[in-house]
Amino acid sequence: MTDKKTIAFVLYPGLTALDFVGPLQVLAVLESFGLPYEAVTVAAGRDAFRADSSVWFTASHTFAEVTEPYGLIVPGGGGPTFTAMTDETLLGYVRDAARTAAVVGSVCTGSLILGAAGLLTGRRATTHWAAMPMLAAFGAEPVTRRWVRDGPVLTAAGVSAGIDMALHLVGELAGEDAARQVQLAIEYDPRPPFGPIDWDTTDRALVEAWMTQEATAALEAHPDLRSRLLTGGRAPR
Amino acid sequence: MTDKKTIAFVLYPGLTALDFVGPLQVLAVLESFGLPYEAVTVAAGRDAFRADSSVWFTASHTFAEVTEPYGLIVPGGGGPTFTAMTDETLLGYVRDAARTAAVVGSVCTGSLILGAAGLLTGRRATTHWAAMPMLAAFGAEPVTRRWVRDGPVLTAAGVSAGIDMALHLVGELAGEDAARQVQLAIEYDPRPPFGPIDWDTTDRALVEAWMTQEATAALEAHPDLRSRLLTGGRAPR
Repeated sequence: MTDKKTIAFVLYPGLTALDFVGPLQVLAVLESFGLPYEAVTVAAGRDAFRADSSVWFTASHTFAEVTEPYGLIVPGGGGPTFTAMTDETLLGYVRDAARTAAVVGSVCTGSLILGAAGLLTGRRATTHWAAMPMLAAFGAEPVTRRWVRDGPVLTAAGVSAGIDMALHLVGELAGEDAARQVQLAIEYDPRPPFGPIDWDTTDRALVEAWMTQEATAALEAHPDLRSRLLTGGRAPR
Repeated sequence: MTDKKTIAFVLYPGLTALDFVGPLQVLAVLESFGLPYEAVTVAAGRDAFRADSSVWFTASHTFAEVTEPYGLIVPGGGGPTFTAMTDETLLGYVRDAARTAAVVGSVCTGSLILGAAGLLTGRRATTHWAAMPMLAAFGAEPVTRRWVRDGPVLTAAGVSAGIDMALHLVGELAGEDAARQVQLAIEYDPRPPFGPIDWDTTDRALVEAWMTQEATAALEAHPDLRSRLLTGGRAPR
């Protein structure tokens, strides 16, 4: 590696592509401005694997090549993320890297992987809104915010929130002016065509059912973890 | 292919990853809800290639496998996008697919590829703000908006604008309720940490210089095209 500070995005099969590409893009622009950071992707190996959409990814580095990153960011997803929560190789990497990292981050349900690695105990944290009750299973204090910083732990809400979190991180690392330049480069001046989410009137049932079903199917062979997640750490009824 | 309507994202080496992953994610969620669309990625071949950030990707299909998509979307980038404007294989695919496609789309400087394929003549279109003067080189009428629809041609502004454009497209294809469900699934409730872009006070010089430099370097062997682009189709001084 170089004398740049390395931020490693932890990839695994089936993850939600936008969870890591959003913040990766933000940090890559920072690098293109000549600032001393580099954003890389890491995975167990160099195999290509499919995201949760029709594209295949290959990480730039293996876990073994990036042992002490300045920061790590774990993206989320549906079923494959619940599966990753039981992947000891991935959990081992996350745990080891977190020992020395100044930023231990996640996007969306990636925070559940941080939780499974034992990194959220006593921490305020967030996740995808439909997975929020699951955070408590790992001793975290769930917080409904776009991103939450608690010590080294920096967690973002669902999917697209990774962009906001990464711009905030650029502000921390390189200052507000740099963050504004990155925002300008990716023309991040959002205009959701149907306006912002109206949390009070939105019908959440479809997405909530999808999330529960993904967890249920992916953790069939891990009934204890499944039960813990689906009851938010409380004893099941 | 299936009886679903296929939307093909055209990939090429060095493109800006978020340009295609943003709208791909939006359309993939639509598909996960069981609606009759599929979003795929297409490229000349099945080689893995690097994006403009530290990740490699491989398209799910070759150009030859998706000859008459319902829609196509061309992402943009910096230098590699200017290089792609001179890639006859890619331009030929875009031109052929556009003959029957109901949606001929682009994100960011991807519109310059549409222009190079001859698809923007007389069309209102947009692109990354720093490339806006270049659109006129292809007979397009540049419009400063988050996305612009003119007949089948649907162009988005820079990088992150592809998410807004894709949500608009979901609204067109499947209705506003479906678009709101997708927005909820990807928790697209943006909160830029330093607020929206203030176009009146922002210092645009760094990004503008970067864009000009990327075009200049990438088109060194194509001085006529380079000159046309950098003068917006007017005679160079």
